[in-house]
Amino acid sequence: MIHPQQPSGMPVAKYVPFQDQIAVDLPDRTWPTKVLEAAPRWCAVDLRDGNQALIDPMSPDRKKRMFELLVRMGYKEIEVGFPSASQTDFDFVRMLIEDDMIPDDVTIQVLTQCRDHLVERTFDAIRGAKQAIVHFYNSTSVLQRRVVFGLDQDGIVDIALQAARLCRKLEETIPDTVVYYEYSPESYTGTELEFAVRICNEVADVIDPTPDHKMIINLPATVEMATPNVYADSIEWMIRHLERRDSIVVSLHPHNDRGTGVAAAELGYLAGADRIEGCLFGNGERTGNVDLVTLGMNLFSQGIDPQIDFSDLDEIRRTVEHCNQLPVAERHPWGGDLVFTAFSGSHQDAIKKGFEDMERQVASSGKPIDELVWGVPYLPIDPHDVGRSYEAVVRVNSQSGKGGVAYLLKKEHQLDLPRRLQIEFSGVVQAKTDTEGGEVSAAQLWNVFQDEYLPAVDGEANAWGRFTPISHALESQAGGADRIVATMLDDGVEVSIEGTGNGPIAAFIDALSTVGVDVRVLDYAEHALSSGGDARAAAYVECAVGDRVLWGVGLHSSIVKASLTAVLSAVNRALREQD
Amino acid sequence: MIHPQQPSGMPVAKYVPFQDQIAVDLPDRTWPTKVLEAAPRWCAVDLRDGNQALIDPMSPDRKKRMFELLVRMGYKEIEVGFPSASQTDFDFVRMLIEDDMIPDDVTIQVLTQCRDHLVERTFDAIRGAKQAIVHFYNSTSVLQRRVVFGLDQDGIVDIALQAARLCRKLEETIPDTVVYYEYSPESYTGTELEFAVRICNEVADVIDPTPDHKMIINLPATVEMATPNVYADSIEWMIRHLERRDSIVVSLHPHNDRGTGVAAAELGYLAGADRIEGCLFGNGERTGNVDLVTLGMNLFSQGIDPQIDFSDLDEIRRTVEHCNQLPVAERHPWGGDLVFTAFSGSHQDAIKKGFEDMERQVASSGKPIDELVWGVPYLPIDPHDVGRSYEAVVRVNSQSGKGGVAYLLKKEHQLDLPRRLQIEFSGVVQAKTDTEGGEVSAAQLWNVFQDEYLPAVDGEANAWGRFTPISHALESQAGGADRIVATMLDDGVEVSIEGTGNGPIAAFIDALSTVGVDVRVLDYAEHALSSGGDARAAAYVECAVGDRVLWGVGLHSSIVKASLTAVLSAVNRALREQD
Repeated sequence: MIHPQQPSGMPVAKYVPFQDQIAVDLPDRTWPTKVLEAAPRWCAVDLRDGNQALIDPMSPDRKKRMFELLVRMGYKEIEVGFPSASQTDFDFVRMLIEDDMIPDDVTIQVLTQCRDHLVERTFDAIRGAKQAIVHFYNSTSVLQRRVVFGLDQDGIVDIALQAARLCRKLEETIPDTVVYYEYSPESYTGTELEFAVRICNEVADVIDPTPDHKMIINLPATVEMATPNVYADSIEWMIRHLERRDSIVVSLHPHNDRGTGVAAAELGYLAGADRIEGCLFGNGERTGNVDLVTLGMNLFSQGIDPQIDFSDLDEIRRTVEHCNQLPVAERHPWGGDLVFTAFSGSHQDAIKKGFEDMERQVASSGKPIDELVWGVPYLPIDPHDVGRSYEAVVRVNSQSGKGGVAYLLKKEHQLDLPRRLQIEFSGVVQAKTDTEGGEVSAAQLWNVFQDEYLPAVDGEANAWGRFTPISHALESQAGGADRIVATMLDDGVEVSIEGTGNGPIAAFIDALSTVGVDVRVLDYAEHALSSGGDARAAAYVECAVGDRVLWGVGLHSSIVKASLTAVLSAVNRALREQD
Repeated sequence: MIHPQQPSGMPVAKYVPFQDQIAVDLPDRTWPTKVLEAAPRWCAVDLRDGNQALIDPMSPDRKKRMFELLVRMGYKEIEVGFPSASQTDFDFVRMLIEDDMIPDDVTIQVLTQCRDHLVERTFDAIRGAKQAIVHFYNSTSVLQRRVVFGLDQDGIVDIALQAARLCRKLEETIPDTVVYYEYSPESYTGTELEFAVRICNEVADVIDPTPDHKMIINLPATVEMATPNVYADSIEWMIRHLERRDSIVVSLHPHNDRGTGVAAAELGYLAGADRIEGCLFGNGERTGNVDLVTLGMNLFSQGIDPQIDFSDLDEIRRTVEHCNQLPVAERHPWGGDLVFTAFSGSHQDAIKKGFEDMERQVASSGKPIDELVWGVPYLPIDPHDVGRSYEAVVRVNSQSGKGGVAYLLKKEHQLDLPRRLQIEFSGVVQAKTDTEGGEVSAAQLWNVFQDEYLPAVDGEANAWGRFTPISHALESQAGGADRIVATMLDDGVEVSIEGTGNGPIAAFIDALSTVGVDVRVLDYAEHALSSGGDARAAAYVECAVGDRVLWGVGLHSSIVKASLTAVLSAVNRALREQD
């Protein structure tokens, strides 16, 4: 097999590989051997970085709902706005403080650029809060230094230090508020590491944090520029070179331009960071901030408490969609509509077996399912843990096989189809979906099943087959044989037939031969329907009718009637196919 | 700052960390020091893995459109279906072959389980193709061996080997088709590496590939179970232990359960894999397959030709949305509606400066923009490269600052506002958006600008201010001073005023003092509007009117009239604010 891919003609020469822009050299990196062990400190920036990127930024009411959601979920650090840049944000921060809406263990965070009047306005905004994080930033990248600021490194450092000094001064004007600081060398991923660590160290010297009163150094992937291992290398490098490490909380703030924001956060956290900033479902400028839901649920799926409550993920999603006025995609990890859904037949089959195995374990151990180790193929977690039902797990389309069909019939109608019947019926379903397309709902599936297997009930006209059962009389004869007299409609005409055999089914088959129907029973299964007030039994018989082998199904409170109906079901199907 | 996060109460004990399930031990890994250098072999599985996971699987027409799209983009290996499992898929493969729709350099791939009748049906499906890849798989994970198959490792190996042997036999029945093979140990990520490599090596011994006729060993993250570095470690480990390496194409097939499918593909590729299977925009079961668009565009953004043509990404997206009947999310990397959009004021400002810098480079170098190195903050690539216009880049909402406002006025109306006027006007816009919420379109912005700065044109009633200009006469006097007679409406009453000064503006201000208006000009700027048939000039004057400092704007084909109108604009605004 040759490799015939051709040049695309796209203008690749415009772009410089990351490694030719910024050197990140850490051959003795240690993070790849580490594993996730505990939740980081989270900071939710939905109300700022997320909000600024909305087509329709949040109204005060939507802001309030988002804040309350974040608090309820368990976030303790919440960036609530950029109060010096927007009157809406300023008013919202004042409302939070003046209406006493901030729980004692929650710290609000406010963003500001490093400009005097904006810093001053920021301190005006937080006055009266019990505690607050003042997050100041300036852009440090090679590109922005040249194109946006026209400044050298010293000039960029001066901007940050002047803001840091002003902060320390203004802090004295609000003595009732405990002020913490966060500094971000914005566009960090486009900044030489030596310069990034220099500006962070110099800012820390002005802020003068202590182990008891740390400051946050936040290292944003403002634009994601390289594979996530490179971000992790850079974080480990920074941590080795940051002075005052014991007084600093190292924070990550990944964006998702390359679709690897979650990986960057996880690998950067392995590299030694303490804290992660992001948004629920990854809202934010362009491709968004790193998704806090995915990060938290990823930890959960590894048996690590995210320290955030995702147990009603659909409600979280609805609130986020309301606040952001943007939908969460169907395949969004953990929260999307389709992420616990299996359409593929082999997946459905394995899921069904996995659920059955869990049920067996519950029965044999006597423990509830939440005390057992989860193990269902294709379902990385129990959908119940995030408030999802199992109903939506298995969905049937033309690509589905027997597993999904069988699962739905068992789940919805307590029918436990024998394996070969599963195969037969999934063929019926597939023929239908191949023709008509689309998904088959559980209700549609039931209609197909009834239409295919279940004759109309006693006394009603049988719309689809030759025989309709009416009644039967059964007597045990000397020697153990059963004798049956069965009354049926035969093409609408009432007939009574008689037969004898070793049990009622054999007797009924003997009777059927008197009206020219040749049946042999190949397999047979029967079970009671579940105890939910339904005293009926289900009977499944695999019959050879003439040269055809096929299944029949009967449901009835009498197991005899169920069995005889199942035989008629098979016979009717065979005769129908002949037509 | 303490760390007050609390336990969530979620049932974490149900889940076992990945490293306690599967050992992946590779302390001497080499992949983290490698960088991306060339495109992998791509295989698009939209028509199979993607299609099977759709609520409404593709109709034959949608299948055909997807196939044609993939061919047009440049994919050379396309998994077209699971023909033994679905009549629709079987018929589609036959149509591709019989209608001669497969280009000579494209190889179709078909999936089959390792079961005799399915393998046989698969060979029936590909008969007559010039070449084809038969992709057979069986599940190998610890969980599936126990729960689904109830088999030990030897039993699982037998399933694969039996299929491999049958394939080699059936190959002889279609001598006109060059058959290649792909084997997947499905649920590879849940399989002990020693067992995964054993089954792959044994399968390869049966298939007996050569360096000239390789086989594909595909290592799917059927369910993504760990951080992406672990997947990369496992790939590097497998490659070290695969026999016949020179006869094997190592393929990746990541899913995205943890939201790190792209990272897993990239790191696994660094680890030595040759080939990546995925879907456009990441369609597929649950959270989807890895996204081929993101992977390709990520390479492109590093100056590496993806060998796939993404130059009309919106058209690609529309086709995919039509075929899948699922939307691509607004923030989906590279293809989402919002991913080249900046709402934040500081981002907009930097983007505007970046575009200006690119224009300067174009002018000074004489080169077209596609021959320069791209460097615009917050835009990792030139949106033009994927067929996007610049218009949508900067969008204005209440979180936007002067940059976005200025950018749109320049882009749409050729107005190059002085910096302080940008600040003033962005305040006007922000007051409006803070009140009304929502995004401000370029058209709305222009309305706000006209309403705020531009008096009604000559001869019409001035709806918003005290003065409406009508006409003026200007004469240069001896000694160089200008004398003006200006006719205006003053609150609807026509007046003529006279004044003298050093130039027309000074003379006009002198004249205005005769009707009690005190104006001083602080700054002044003027430029011609762009050459697009518009011969007008724009004049901007910063005036002190009484104790207020504010800007006025005038547009007119006469630079004098534009200037005088700008003064009146400032005066009218000041008087309006007094009211």
